[in-house]
Amino acid sequence: MKIPKKIAILTSGGDAPGMNAAIRAVVRACTYYNLESVGIYRGFEGLIEGDFKELDARSVKNIINRGGTFLKSSRSEEFRTEEGRKKAFNNLQNENIDALVVIGGDGTFAGASVFIKEFNFPIVGLPGTIDNDINGTDYTIGYDTALNTVVEAIDKIRDTANSHNRLFLVEVMGRDAGDIALNAGIGAGAEEILIPEQNMGRERLLESLSRSKKSGKTSSIVVVSEGDQIGKNIFGLAKYIEENLKEYEVKVTVLGHIQRGGSPSCYDRVLASRLGVGAVDALLRGETNVMIGIIHNKVTSVPFSEAIKGNNEIDEDLIRVADIISI
Amino acid sequence: MKIPKKIAILTSGGDAPGMNAAIRAVVRACTYYNLESVGIYRGFEGLIEGDFKELDARSVKNIINRGGTFLKSSRSEEFRTEEGRKKAFNNLQNENIDALVVIGGDGTFAGASVFIKEFNFPIVGLPGTIDNDINGTDYTIGYDTALNTVVEAIDKIRDTANSHNRLFLVEVMGRDAGDIALNAGIGAGAEEILIPEQNMGRERLLESLSRSKKSGKTSSIVVVSEGDQIGKNIFGLAKYIEENLKEYEVKVTVLGHIQRGGSPSCYDRVLASRLGVGAVDALLRGETNVMIGIIHNKVTSVPFSEAIKGNNEIDEDLIRVADIISI
Amino acid sequence: MKIPKKIAILTSGGDAPGMNAAIRAVVRACTYYNLESVGIYRGFEGLIEGDFKELDARSVKNIINRGGTFLKSSRSEEFRTEEGRKKAFNNLQNENIDALVVIGGDGTFAGASVFIKEFNFPIVGLPGTIDNDINGTDYTIGYDTALNTVVEAIDKIRDTANSHNRLFLVEVMGRDAGDIALNAGIGAGAEEILIPEQNMGRERLLESLSRSKKSGKTSSIVVVSEGDQIGKNIFGLAKYIEENLKEYEVKVTVLGHIQRGGSPSCYDRVLASRLGVGAVDALLRGETNVMIGIIHNKVTSVPFSEAIKGNNEIDEDLIRVADIISI
Amino acid sequence: MKIPKKIAILTSGGDAPGMNAAIRAVVRACTYYNLESVGIYRGFEGLIEGDFKELDARSVKNIINRGGTFLKSSRSEEFRTEEGRKKAFNNLQNENIDALVVIGGDGTFAGASVFIKEFNFPIVGLPGTIDNDINGTDYTIGYDTALNTVVEAIDKIRDTANSHNRLFLVEVMGRDAGDIALNAGIGAGAEEILIPEQNMGRERLLESLSRSKKSGKTSSIVVVSEGDQIGKNIFGLAKYIEENLKEYEVKVTVLGHIQRGGSPSCYDRVLASRLGVGAVDALLRGETNVMIGIIHNKVTSVPFSEAIKGNNEIDEDLIRVADIISI
Repeated sequence: MKIPKKIAILTSGGDAPGMNAAIRAVVRACTYYNLESVGIYRGFEGLIEGDFKELDARSVKNIINRGGTFLKSSRSEEFRTEEGRKKAFNNLQNENIDALVVIGGDGTFAGASVFIKEFNFPIVGLPGTIDNDINGTDYTIGYDTALNTVVEAIDKIRDTANSHNRLFLVEVMGRDAGDIALNAGIGAGAEEILIPEQNMGRERLLESLSRSKKSGKTSSIVVVSEGDQIGKNIFGLAKYIEENLKEYEVKVTVLGHIQRGGSPSCYDRVLASRLGVGAVDALLRGETNVMIGIIHNKVTSVPFSEAIKGNNEIDEDLIRVADIISI
Repeated sequence: MKIPKKIAILTSGGDAPGMNAAIRAVVRACTYYNLESVGIYRGFEGLIEGDFKELDARSVKNIINRGGTFLKSSRSEEFRTEEGRKKAFNNLQNENIDALVVIGGDGTFAGASVFIKEFNFPIVGLPGTIDNDINGTDYTIGYDTALNTVVEAIDKIRDTANSHNRLFLVEVMGRDAGDIALNAGIGAGAEEILIPEQNMGRERLLESLSRSKKSGKTSSIVVVSEGDQIGKNIFGLAKYIEENLKEYEVKVTVLGHIQRGGSPSCYDRVLASRLGVGAVDALLRGETNVMIGIIHNKVTSVPFSEAIKGNNEIDEDLIRVADIISI
Repeated sequence: MKIPKKIAILTSGGDAPGMNAAIRAVVRACTYYNLESVGIYRGFEGLIEGDFKELDARSVKNIINRGGTFLKSSRSEEFRTEEGRKKAFNNLQNENIDALVVIGGDGTFAGASVFIKEFNFPIVGLPGTIDNDINGTDYTIGYDTALNTVVEAIDKIRDTANSHNRLFLVEVMGRDAGDIALNAGIGAGAEEILIPEQNMGRERLLESLSRSKKSGKTSSIVVVSEGDQIGKNIFGLAKYIEENLKEYEVKVTVLGHIQRGGSPSCYDRVLASRLGVGAVDALLRGETNVMIGIIHNKVTSVPFSEAIKGNNEIDEDLIRVADIISI
Repeated sequence: MKIPKKIAILTSGGDAPGMNAAIRAVVRACTYYNLESVGIYRGFEGLIEGDFKELDARSVKNIINRGGTFLKSSRSEEFRTEEGRKKAFNNLQNENIDALVVIGGDGTFAGASVFIKEFNFPIVGLPGTIDNDINGTDYTIGYDTALNTVVEAIDKIRDTANSHNRLFLVEVMGRDAGDIALNAGIGAGAEEILIPEQNMGRERLLESLSRSKKSGKTSSIVVVSEGDQIGKNIFGLAKYIEENLKEYEVKVTVLGHIQRGGSPSCYDRVLASRLGVGAVDALLRGETNVMIGIIHNKVTSVPFSEAIKGNNEIDEDLIRVADIISI
């Protein structure tokens, strides 16, 4: 094993709050260990096009508090081709880069895995996505911030819901994972939470809303995960409820891209800092083809092949708590 | 003129941040002047149904910072009927209420005006709406808070826009008034702002986006007022842009009801406090059929008939500034 | 063991964001299990004075998002006396209360323990304090919110620090625990972090500041834990630095009580909800004299005697990360 | 009069949120009018040292939402000397700069005035200070943001005040002007507000606190302006109250420098944008030795000599409203 002297970093896929904090930590860990560091713009696309820039400890100042990623991100079609990856490898060789840190989600790690196999080039990954749908880490970078963004938005919507005795359907992100919906739903005091891991069905939702109306609730928030089957047509769901529960005026809000942005929470900044340092540590130990995650508050590493299996388990205790406290 | 001894207050129409601060100010001004005060729940509906509650200075503590209206609001069909209004009048008589303060928008004032004419009952109004579309006041209660909510949301969206070189269309509220779109658009650094008072047309928008792309902009935010003609079908607009400006990936976010809620800004709290006190002052001076507003930082009153004319003038200087700073 | 039918709840000691969410969860869990619930105002003081109120599921609506504790809190001298505790016990008997949930910190648990021993009355506790200084739980209720409050405040201070090339000393809470300082310091990108668990000494701080100045840093934030020895006289520390590092203008900010308030973060709301349900679950299982905490994301219980030992261990990996990323 | 071709801009004195938005507007207005623009770092100090940088429309992207000033600020001793100012003038000549925009407070304008007299060099100013203590403008850039920061901080403190039945003294900025204290005090629902323009005296404060305690208030917030006589020793004031009003536990919070930072409010961003464009407009009209302000929502200009007179008038109606609503 050759110890790396020059490490490159890129962000790929959907952006997430805390990516800048992670980049900063990687760069500063390089400085700390007397390694050179290089930023690659626009993810794998910039890797193929050679859009590189030397970074040092001062290049990453005053970014820990900023959402998005200053290295920008993209989804690259060309990186799916052998030719694209070959170009990418040549660029790394020409710049004397010995190892790569990629921040992104399962698509990013899958791409990296192919590249490692082809070129035996050391890569470690960091889980950067608001969806918390990665295996091998308790939290992904950006998830905690997204939860706070959703809860703050629903707090605002509840002001109106309370003032008018209305029912609001609020669609939140998360792809196939219900983590954002379930946790933000509990945090926002939602009456019902629709997640892809369960299949409540429209009838049970109606019954439940009807019951909570009778128990004296005058307004309601239903949080709907974008991946949930009955939530996928949220405007249709609103119509269905209005037709079947006459007493309610139903409104829909799709929270959308505000969930991906914003200044990261303290948790995400600390997590990103720990994982960024952990990535450099792992490369120095000779690790490759792994994602650095956090399990039980310890930095750990897991093969990419494990990470991309996804995390579709939902905490049964959380579902039980959600049921109890929305009574 | 009979000096009122007991004043009732209600909130009507869409809720707006600062309504609670206004209620608090009315109630405390009553206490200050040794008048009794009564809260009426659910606007004109509660007025018809006799849903009244005595309030004193302590009843309104710890509400100045809360969005929505604790008296709740509604749109009442029954108040549009003579019979409904007759019931309302009887309730006021039975409770020995001498005067009424209504907080709402033009619909609220129109209803109040009819009632005054029929029963010669003293009513003054306060402009409570995020839309800033009322004549006779420089600011409506809730407008400043809504501007901050929109700007904070777009700041988050810009994180993603910047990270991905995308174009975002962001729809904001305001009914027929472009005030929210224009001011929040400037505040959020939008590249283009579509408001109902202008009629940019799709072609000019395309040209402008194309120009700004050439000038080196890699991402763009277009703020679209819900009342704007070409914005009314915002998803259609997105498709049109994607078809005609290939280089852009276009995303749509409809901000929706988060704009109506939230803890009021300092400006809205102070404004609501001044106008609430001003309403009681006006009733004590024997005024009726007027809205209390703020013009050039002075509390003032204007007949309801003037207020409901709406405010469709847009500040030409602001449009010029928007053009210049989005260069 | 007798299964409780009526459970009381109180908050004691310093308030923390999320206490309301915890109260709500206890009350709703009682409703869920068909138990009665009673709120006790002003902690042990209200327990002694019989300041009780029946609560049901609707009594705790719209409080999950509010800081502080609507049951109010206090530190009770009288509860330290046998006579005071005897009164308290009689009140519980008279109201047919079978068990008690107390939310607070180590002082609260110590008091509860004495009471349990004297009267064999079932009590479980929840860790409610921003300081995260309780043994037997990874997180205390309110801690995550306080971290975000501190980080947001320092983000603002950094705007000024950057604009003027200044050094700011920022004092944060935490009593004898450095958790807030260390985590918020990392999150805020602090150059140095002074915590009671380490003993940096003034000389090492000077050296370090001097070094970071030479490495090109033009402004600095030093986060100082209120429990740190050299930080205890923070104005004296400022003077010492100014005298020894001429190039710096040093400013001090003591963040103070803003750290205890504010709308709880999503994490704190979910944690409080889980622990609140967990407290009722534990009482139904016959547990007493224990605190309900969270370890490795599982709700768990630990004897009060363990909890009050305090948590003075600091994560060595975090200290290492802090050193690396502030390079 | 010579029409300027190249305009420089600097920020001076204490920083304020919105300064970046103002710089951006000046630079983009220059682009719009085909003028060159130059940024001067660190205020008059950088002017003397020749710390200049060419700016174009893209140099100022993504700064409208950031607190502080990216051009940095300072207080320059050397600019008070003839020699310093001579160097400054030479630098401007050497760079072919025709006119200057300075953003700051009264000290900045006073310095600019002297420079104009000596070298007949065109300068216009923009009011950038959170204190709102400048004559000739209804609002200074940064003031509205500071009000929101203060109100949000006191909302948090009130959580604790309510939970514990405490009295909090909260010191806010504003130098000799009570604008921040009075408006934020009203907005935060303070029981008493101490401002330098009034002189309440300790005895009247005591009486008033005593009265509000009797009227059923269980907690209190007193907002104290840093310039107020009896507030100047705020810890002494706390002791005085505790000694004379036994029932209260009194706590002090000095909000400090968080008030100067933070992302600007929508109002401040729009104001800064309008004034920044207005500054370039004024220079193109041949104006000099004036400050651009906003009066009754119109951009206007006023001689520096007027602006620096300060604005010590306090709105009597606001004081009356504060008295009424704190009943």
